[in-house]
Amino acid sequence: MKNANLIIACPKGRLESKIVSMLKRKGLEFERDFFNESSRKLTFNTNFKNIKIIKLKPSDIRAYTMLGAADIGFVGYDDILENSDNNIVLLNKTKIGKCRLSIASNKKKIDFAEKKIFKVATKFKNITEKYFEEKNIQIEIIKLNGSIELAVKYGVADLIVDLVESGQTLKQNHLFENIIINNNISTVSISSYYAYDLKKDLIKKLII
Amino acid sequence: MKNANLIIACPKGRLESKIVSMLKRKGLEFERDFFNESSRKLTFNTNFKNIKIIKLKPSDIRAYTMLGAADIGFVGYDDILENSDNNIVLLNKTKIGKCRLSIASNKKKIDFAEKKIFKVATKFKNITEKYFEEKNIQIEIIKLNGSIELAVKYGVADLIVDLVESGQTLKQNHLFENIIINNNISTVSISSYYAYDLKKDLIKKLII
Repeated sequence: MKNANLIIACPKGRLESKIVSMLKRKGLEFERDFFNESSRKLTFNTNFKNIKIIKLKPSDIRAYTMLGAADIGFVGYDDILENSDNNIVLLNKTKIGKCRLSIASNKKKIDFAEKKIFKVATKFKNITEKYFEEKNIQIEIIKLNGSIELAVKYGVADLIVDLVESGQTLKQNHLFENIIINNNISTVSISSYYAYDLKKDLIKKLII
Repeated sequence: MKNANLIIACPKGRLESKIVSMLKRKGLEFERDFFNESSRKLTFNTNFKNIKIIKLKPSDIRAYTMLGAADIGFVGYDDILENSDNNIVLLNKTKIGKCRLSIASNKKKIDFAEKKIFKVATKFKNITEKYFEEKNIQIEIIKLNGSIELAVKYGVADLIVDLVESGQTLKQNHLFENIIINNNISTVSISSYYAYDLKKDLIKKLII
């Protein structure tokens, strides 16, 4: 009965402790090695014999969940918006990592009539293309992987599309948050349809 | 004469100090703020009035160089192999960050007749596709962003294609380095054709 096991993928790093606390509130206890940074264990036990935990880089959790290596994964809602996949079941939206996805620039107000094509730097190519296409505004995407907020200063983009939490990073880089594209980003729990179908009862008990 | 300025993009993090040392050996001195982690400066001066330094995440340097925000950038040769672009001028191969790109698995020898399709986990989608296509081996790519070495253990892939330096990470994860795809990866200096054409003399003096 291998399928009776439920594997939860927990993201390493910034949001790890918050997700662990949330799982604890649901009644899960983690084996001590989980909190030992130097442990080379891959799978950690919990107080439930059939529930195991794995730790992954946040950006790999969606892939591992889709591929069946995890039954429940925690990812940013932005990850789901950007990489929509028919095989994803969105289980629950948490209040962890709340932020918004916004357009920012070095101007208080963007005048979209000012240019024919706007250069937009972002990690979120698909969301950005979709947004501007719907608004009928021509853009060229500058796909970056980090420090998006530098792109305007360095002159490679007119606008950026990025996650905004407190707004401090924008302020420090003299950028204005012009338009909120999505005000409702936070960590969500996901499953694949395959795992959900097979382990619905256990998943529902734990997550919802 | 804005074009007479030469902007060098230095990668933050693991290889930063080695690249700084190399530039120092070429006669460059950096202003003190460059070494101050909390400095919010974007562009740093050097002892040459027309040479400036910017610091970027390694994965953004190629884009910034292509877009003209930097005239010289330092990136991994793997980045160039994976994202070939006609606009890139490869200036020089350094000895910094030497490693190889290899195929690894949990078997001492891979028997490619054993399966019809091999699942291959990697960050290097393009290089991997090209390699196996040339060998006429059918694969399915599992695109991951980090901790590639876990993919075999977690059962999401048969093989991985990843950078190998000492081989320690593979060993610790009970993987064998089966095939070396490229034995000649290291940090390279690049320029865009546009910048190279305009600032050839200064670039040549500094890099070659």
